[in-house]
Amino acid sequence: MFDFVFHNPTKIVFGRKKEESIGEELKSAGMGKVLFVYGQNSIKRSGLFDRITASLKKNGINYAEFGGVVSNPVISHTRQGVELAKREGVDAILAVGGGSVLDESKAIAVGVLADDDVWNYFTGKEVTRALPVFTVITLAATGSEMNGNAVVTNEETKQKYNIGSPHVYPRVSILNPELTCTVPLSYSAFGAVDAIAHVIEGYFTRQAGSHLQDRLVEGIIKTVIETNNVIMQEPDNYAARAEFMWAATLALNGLTTAGLKEYSFPNHMVEHSLSAIYNIAHGAGLAIVMPAWMKWYSLKAPERFARFAREVFGIEGAAAGISALEVWFAAIGAPIRLQDADIPAGDIGMIAENAAALATLWGIGDTYSKEVIAEILQLAV
Amino acid sequence: MFDFVFHNPTKIVFGRKKEESIGEELKSAGMGKVLFVYGQNSIKRSGLFDRITASLKKNGINYAEFGGVVSNPVISHTRQGVELAKREGVDAILAVGGGSVLDESKAIAVGVLADDDVWNYFTGKEVTRALPVFTVITLAATGSEMNGNAVVTNEETKQKYNIGSPHVYPRVSILNPELTCTVPLSYSAFGAVDAIAHVIEGYFTRQAGSHLQDRLVEGIIKTVIETNNVIMQEPDNYAARAEFMWAATLALNGLTTAGLKEYSFPNHMVEHSLSAIYNIAHGAGLAIVMPAWMKWYSLKAPERFARFAREVFGIEGAAAGISALEVWFAAIGAPIRLQDADIPAGDIGMIAENAAALATLWGIGDTYSKEVIAEILQLAV
Repeated sequence: MFDFVFHNPTKIVFGRKKEESIGEELKSAGMGKVLFVYGQNSIKRSGLFDRITASLKKNGINYAEFGGVVSNPVISHTRQGVELAKREGVDAILAVGGGSVLDESKAIAVGVLADDDVWNYFTGKEVTRALPVFTVITLAATGSEMNGNAVVTNEETKQKYNIGSPHVYPRVSILNPELTCTVPLSYSAFGAVDAIAHVIEGYFTRQAGSHLQDRLVEGIIKTVIETNNVIMQEPDNYAARAEFMWAATLALNGLTTAGLKEYSFPNHMVEHSLSAIYNIAHGAGLAIVMPAWMKWYSLKAPERFARFAREVFGIEGAAAGISALEVWFAAIGAPIRLQDADIPAGDIGMIAENAAALATLWGIGDTYSKEVIAEILQLAV
Repeated sequence: MFDFVFHNPTKIVFGRKKEESIGEELKSAGMGKVLFVYGQNSIKRSGLFDRITASLKKNGINYAEFGGVVSNPVISHTRQGVELAKREGVDAILAVGGGSVLDESKAIAVGVLADDDVWNYFTGKEVTRALPVFTVITLAATGSEMNGNAVVTNEETKQKYNIGSPHVYPRVSILNPELTCTVPLSYSAFGAVDAIAHVIEGYFTRQAGSHLQDRLVEGIIKTVIETNNVIMQEPDNYAARAEFMWAATLALNGLTTAGLKEYSFPNHMVEHSLSAIYNIAHGAGLAIVMPAWMKWYSLKAPERFARFAREVFGIEGAAAGISALEVWFAAIGAPIRLQDADIPAGDIGMIAENAAALATLWGIGDTYSKEVIAEILQLAV
């Protein structure tokens, strides 16, 4: 294991109806007014909006409403949120929704306390402060509820970039697995792919690590697969929803990567270009990129892939393990080839160019040139 | 999974020479003066004391020295620490040592801000505040570096009781695996037993839980066994020391029990009587109690024990799994019968009476009567 700092101060409140305690959490943290950020009107139709606002009122928390966050949240809308939050003088950001709502909320939290444009913090400027963020999540997938990451797309420049900072860990995140039952099944599937992608990146690309981390990753992947097999048949199965939800949170809260060395996120790097350009769901993009990347990378780490096949699927051979994962992605309804998402193979050069720019920003440009990325994407045709 | 709150705000700084950053951590947290708590003079002989004080001086942190914490720390010495900390007007407690030093330091942190005797908080009074605690640990075992527990013995009443409170989570814990290389091998073995005991309690006694938690527990146990097999042969093997150290921390930081229901700590309950009465090492006591308790309890949860045997040791059958663990305890030099620790079988009635009082305090007195505890201890003869 290599030197690391692990510090994850987010308080998780997990269970049925827990969203009704959000007002109490805000009050005990000394918050008087929040920017209530959400996506589409589904949270109003489902009654979630009313339950949250009832809890806020009961605890004397004022709020300004800011809806309209889209999947793959965009910087123009984020800037509107920053302006509104400044105008309203809020103490905190309350995010209610999936990963997109959480990510945009974190970006707003940074922007409110910044003197310059919030996009600067996505292109390399260090975040030194942010308003406190509180979340109620409605989807198990991104892990954003317990980490310091936020991904936002600049729709003008077609850049899907991220902030990573200790200042944007949510103060409190409320996880009620019941809320995830209302999401379309395809989004559960994309969430499963996303959670697996989060742990696979470090698992395969690390130069050195530990058996403990390997076991944690394998345990998370097996749990995600098992629980989603149940969810596909019984969308309202609380036990499966709950276990999947917690697995997705643990998949990207720093535990699986603590003590690893020189790991990278190549699948996310390539996928960000797919969703930036074609606006497809992040999990859908990952389901396309991952099998291709794994086929390409397995030659570089054959023993890691053999272990993956054996421990996760109980089968022998690197190629068999990749194939089993790909087949499972397809079985839960995720696209596994570019064509499945109506992305023309002829666009590969353009996608690779976009992704190569992010590879450079993330410091893995030497390995992932435009040509290499194109080579990987050819395996997704 | 059942409803839970997970909130572990401790910052872990892990790696070689990290104790040299303790002054910086204290300074950046705004601390000006600490009570420097430690055990015996070994930290002076090893040079650790000097490295720590050099870091304190470099960062302008004043300190009052308070050594002499014993294994199975006692309330009389704790009270002296409380008095000294009050007299010196310290801002925080700095614990440098193993679990005993950490536990006593947490108790001092509570006592300094209390108007009444600190023992009251071990017998049921709620902790509402405590001074910040910072730690540098020298032993992988108790998990005290990343949880809100502290166990102290009242030597007059022969009660080994505990505090459990969110107020005593260490603010920062520094884990340098190199420091654990200086500890006698028997203590590494006791630490291994302790870490396994921490995860086994919830794993076997839970009424309901999740596959994810089971896998996390099994991963921790396998890692503890593997790494200690290496350590017994190569005490200075950094990779094994590091992996064991992090596994021991994760074994009792709330992760393995989040979402479990109605689990209890019967092995710790019985062991506390052994170390309270005979002052044996906690891990040694657990190595005696655990196999006996497992033999007694396996009839109540045969499928859990069969899973344990299969997943941890790759063998079939509940009894075989328990036997494999017992054999391993003996192989690393831990006692597995009362006689191995010079505890007379004739004392069982008296031990059981002591333990039954703690069972009542912990709310498991209905299951663990004096008679039942005696029955369990007979299996350790």
